[in-house]
Amino acid sequence: MRPQVLIIGCGFGGLEAARALRSADVDITLVDKTNHHLFQPLLYQVATAGLSAPSIAAPIRHLFRRQRNVTTLLGEVVAIDPQARTVALKDGATLHWDHLIVAAGATHSYFGRDDWAPFAPGLKTLDDAFEIRRRVLMAFEAAEREDDPARRAALLQFVVVGGGPTGVELAGTFAEIARHTLPGEFRRIDPRQARVLLVEGGARVLQSMPERLCERAREQLTALGVEVKLAARVTGIDAEGLDITSAAGHERLLSRCIVWAAGVAASPLGRTLAQATGCTLDRAGRVVVEPDLSLQGHPNIQVIGDLAAAHSHVPGREPRPVPGVSPGAKQMGRYAAANIQRRLRGEATQAFRYADYGNLATIGRNSAVVDLDTPAGPLRFSGYFAWLFWLFAHVWFLIGFRNRFVVLVDWAWAYWTHDRHARVVAGGISAASPASAAAASARPPAG
Amino acid sequence: MRPQVLIIGCGFGGLEAARALRSADVDITLVDKTNHHLFQPLLYQVATAGLSAPSIAAPIRHLFRRQRNVTTLLGEVVAIDPQARTVALKDGATLHWDHLIVAAGATHSYFGRDDWAPFAPGLKTLDDAFEIRRRVLMAFEAAEREDDPARRAALLQFVVVGGGPTGVELAGTFAEIARHTLPGEFRRIDPRQARVLLVEGGARVLQSMPERLCERAREQLTALGVEVKLAARVTGIDAEGLDITSAAGHERLLSRCIVWAAGVAASPLGRTLAQATGCTLDRAGRVVVEPDLSLQGHPNIQVIGDLAAAHSHVPGREPRPVPGVSPGAKQMGRYAAANIQRRLRGEATQAFRYADYGNLATIGRNSAVVDLDTPAGPLRFSGYFAWLFWLFAHVWFLIGFRNRFVVLVDWAWAYWTHDRHARVVAGGISAASPASAAAASARPPAG
Repeated sequence: MRPQVLIIGCGFGGLEAARALRSADVDITLVDKTNHHLFQPLLYQVATAGLSAPSIAAPIRHLFRRQRNVTTLLGEVVAIDPQARTVALKDGATLHWDHLIVAAGATHSYFGRDDWAPFAPGLKTLDDAFEIRRRVLMAFEAAEREDDPARRAALLQFVVVGGGPTGVELAGTFAEIARHTLPGEFRRIDPRQARVLLVEGGARVLQSMPERLCERAREQLTALGVEVKLAARVTGIDAEGLDITSAAGHERLLSRCIVWAAGVAASPLGRTLAQATGCTLDRAGRVVVEPDLSLQGHPNIQVIGDLAAAHSHVPGREPRPVPGVSPGAKQMGRYAAANIQRRLRGEATQAFRYADYGNLATIGRNSAVVDLDTPAGPLRFSGYFAWLFWLFAHVWFLIGFRNRFVVLVDWAWAYWTHDRHARVVAGGISAASPASAAAASARPPAG
Repeated sequence: MRPQVLIIGCGFGGLEAARALRSADVDITLVDKTNHHLFQPLLYQVATAGLSAPSIAAPIRHLFRRQRNVTTLLGEVVAIDPQARTVALKDGATLHWDHLIVAAGATHSYFGRDDWAPFAPGLKTLDDAFEIRRRVLMAFEAAEREDDPARRAALLQFVVVGGGPTGVELAGTFAEIARHTLPGEFRRIDPRQARVLLVEGGARVLQSMPERLCERAREQLTALGVEVKLAARVTGIDAEGLDITSAAGHERLLSRCIVWAAGVAASPLGRTLAQATGCTLDRAGRVVVEPDLSLQGHPNIQVIGDLAAAHSHVPGREPRPVPGVSPGAKQMGRYAAANIQRRLRGEATQAFRYADYGNLATIGRNSAVVDLDTPAGPLRFSGYFAWLFWLFAHVWFLIGFRNRFVVLVDWAWAYWTHDRHARVVAGGISAASPASAAAASARPPAG
């Protein structure tokens, strides 16, 4: 019997690990809680009605249909036994492994305030994206029906918490929807009067970028119509709005559409793994791994992607933490696969080394910032050409040709018409009830 | 103040009525329970993962953005007052009207057995389509995980109840998915071993078609791999399967994926209207209307589309019932709009006359039947050219250019690759729970 490789989670890391083992003499089982690989960098487009879900989600078993050593299973891992080399699924089934790759990803963190979740959904899964889409579009619908000017103004106030890439993308696109997509379609309200706020606790947006680009990003957001509140801490969120505190004092913002893009926490599977193996978790719940991405004392268990607190090891230099971005997850996936093959050949494993090609972030129509490391030195620019660069990079990395083509058509159309074609809310008027929101938030993210 | 026209429901009838009033000196309010017009003839493609929802659903207010006399409101009408000329919305709001067009459509009927609904969802709304998509795809996923051969066989048994156009389309496409889309993607099951059954109570499928074409349709279904059971009555449906009775006796079919395409009932708004106006309902709950589509004694209320028990009036001929198809609803919408304009000019209203151009039904890849009335006489054909004809007719009538184009791309792709790109189930493994199914079934259809 060939060595059994079990991969938990089919995000960028798990997908890449399975692909990298395509010619290996192993049997691979890929377990995920959903039936699709999600191209997360474009998930905000589904949330803002620019793309339909199938454009950025590909059925996992379809991606591996020709890789005969991969078996795809839909399932949720609830326990890991390193001695017996098994995992238990939620429905009671047991899967055996010789080599385990845990790539269960991350979820959003409310920093201990999970009671905020129903009022401020995050964006990690397709369900999250549908919920945000629903809330944004339903807020405009409710405003059109509202006669009271104060309540109407509250309905037209949109707040994004967190100035990282996702927060910036969402806020920029909300402003675009209000200013360019919806005007002319309403008879009682003017969507352009909607107010979009981006609340960030730190002193800058896109903090992982060089300072000059952060400033450009803030300027571009402002030009798109987003009010950026920096150094502002959220102290409370409820059904009516949120409270923020800054140097200027306390402020109460009324809003029926708040999106949480502020915190990331590792998948709860990290804790499961810690209980089973005694491995260490960092403050964000990520698993501290050895240089070769394995667990201390458990060389046949590797943790990759957003679940791993991994470092990049360059000889002669201080190890540096790997950022939680998709190139990091993909590269870890390839390293994990290569290390399994080395172990099977009786060779020593290699320390992970992250190749950082830079950072892209889009802000909205025609606006993005690019921070690249090229052999000729750093390349940093912003504005229209940065946006074009961002667009082609993302379409290029989309999984599966058809998706790429459809996404390009959708974007070309959206660009010329300002239209957003996926403005469809299934379920209608009762769809935005707090109960359904709570249910959506309570559901764990894709593994 | 200009005359107020209120249209309830934005299906084919309501949409067409509002459009036909584009130059009229009236204010139109269009109320619908969802934010989108649904191209229902292609809804089965969303249910079978061939198209994404936004491809066949267009935001209503976007469709009317340039027609300035239309105000679109998201709302659910719960009461109609013909004396005060108002309707009440569920949230307590009141809308005034001088002319009322009720186009609330139909829902599925379980013929008094609503307890079957959780086990056999029907197909009327996007939520229905997502639920069916989920059940079909999750059945294959569960079968891949199932070791017991009997349970596995039950998971791979798909039953469609009802041999009308929707039932035939669904059964044909299920067979296509099992035979052409999924093979090669599973490692433990062979999707081609799935059994697709179509259970019809009458002696033929597509009973509204000429008998010869019904027979062709049955042959094409069989060629695609569907087992057609005619003259078979469903006597019970539960979580494990269904019971059918035919001349051959009793039969128990195990299935975890049953779709109900057998019965149609008018929207509950028909009963609301009957209580308010004393109008008559027919056996299917449809409102019996005057020749000009108005209600007896209430000339300023018209009922159109699937909610109306309407007749076509050709001078010198017996009035004939109008079939419940989209051309009927659209033509009624135009007549209702024209009659309002006649009344505003003080002219007499006109009796509705249905122009019957014939009937199309598709069965699956390369298979369809066409029954057309042309000036040169009836034109009846089936097979590949009928399928091409059906395809172009449907793409042609899709609302909005972008959708047409995307749908054509999707179909061309699907045709060449046998791929179905929308095989994405949001929510993952817990998505197919009976609770969520019951909730989806309990939700009323789009108005």
